[in-house]
Amino acid sequence: MAKIACLLHNDFEDSEFRIPHERLAEAGHEIVIVGLKAGEEVEGKRGRESVRVETTARSLDPAGFDGLLIPGGWSPDKLRMDADLVAFVRAMVTAGKPTAAICHGPWLLAEADVVRGRTLTSYPSIKTDMRNAGANWVDQDVMVDGNLVTSRKPDDLDAFCNAFLSKLAPVPARRG
Amino acid sequence: MAKIACLLHNDFEDSEFRIPHERLAEAGHEIVIVGLKAGEEVEGKRGRESVRVETTARSLDPAGFDGLLIPGGWSPDKLRMDADLVAFVRAMVTAGKPTAAICHGPWLLAEADVVRGRTLTSYPSIKTDMRNAGANWVDQDVMVDGNLVTSRKPDDLDAFCNAFLSKLAPVPARRG
Repeated sequence: MAKIACLLHNDFEDSEFRIPHERLAEAGHEIVIVGLKAGEEVEGKRGRESVRVETTARSLDPAGFDGLLIPGGWSPDKLRMDADLVAFVRAMVTAGKPTAAICHGPWLLAEADVVRGRTLTSYPSIKTDMRNAGANWVDQDVMVDGNLVTSRKPDDLDAFCNAFLSKLAPVPARRG
Repeated sequence: MAKIACLLHNDFEDSEFRIPHERLAEAGHEIVIVGLKAGEEVEGKRGRESVRVETTARSLDPAGFDGLLIPGGWSPDKLRMDADLVAFVRAMVTAGKPTAAICHGPWLLAEADVVRGRTLTSYPSIKTDMRNAGANWVDQDVMVDGNLVTSRKPDDLDAFCNAFLSKLAPVPARRG
């Protein structure tokens, strides 16, 4: 079982939270909702999901987490202004923890300056921001580069979840 | 009288369209609404403004315009994916036409790759994107660098409009 930090604020893309959350929970992983204010109820941009923030990044030790999930929508636009949260992202990625970001989620990776020389995808509107941050941007449903798993949009969620789950629980090598 | 192209799509920040539009119209300038589909009605993110798009960028000659206005909100996130519109922005800025962008509006300037070496401001969430695009980012109500006029947020609208208007209609030199 892995302990995953999910970074969330208002106007997240509802399905990009709900579907990975369901898939991770089904697989037995624990998800902790990290936002800007503990106890705050945040809502998806489509009004379909409402989620309570459990903690802020300020009080977290990256060593206590095994992976990171960053849904898209407009949530990352607010989250990237929180220096503690950006430092948490940087610590998780540089420690090699599996990190999954979809749609506008990779903005947080650019903010944390951890995409230099990495290959990734994102919602196409921010591809120039990703390239300017030093990433090699590709247009495909999911891109896995080491510990970074990225996707473009809700339509890519199946491939995105499969790739992230396989990073969290690698298939054990067969014994002869 | 100047002819100003105003770049607009759904989820623009209502006040960042309405107030500059009012101020420009009061000063006798003509505003043409440029978007992604001629005839489309686009709405502000707060539901307070509804505006009809007059034309797309594809059919426009930059030579026919004297200035450019880019309101913020989420509108620029969609507009920056239209290559013709981005080319129009690039042509206007490189021709030295007064260009006013506020909040998330400067995203379009980064997309057009016209901020390298320029000093500007924007909504603080995108300051890293602006720096990565080569800009010198400052935190003030309005920044004027040559033909570029930029501001951070709705609270800055008065300074933003004053600076843009003074670029469009310079005070004539006194005759001795």
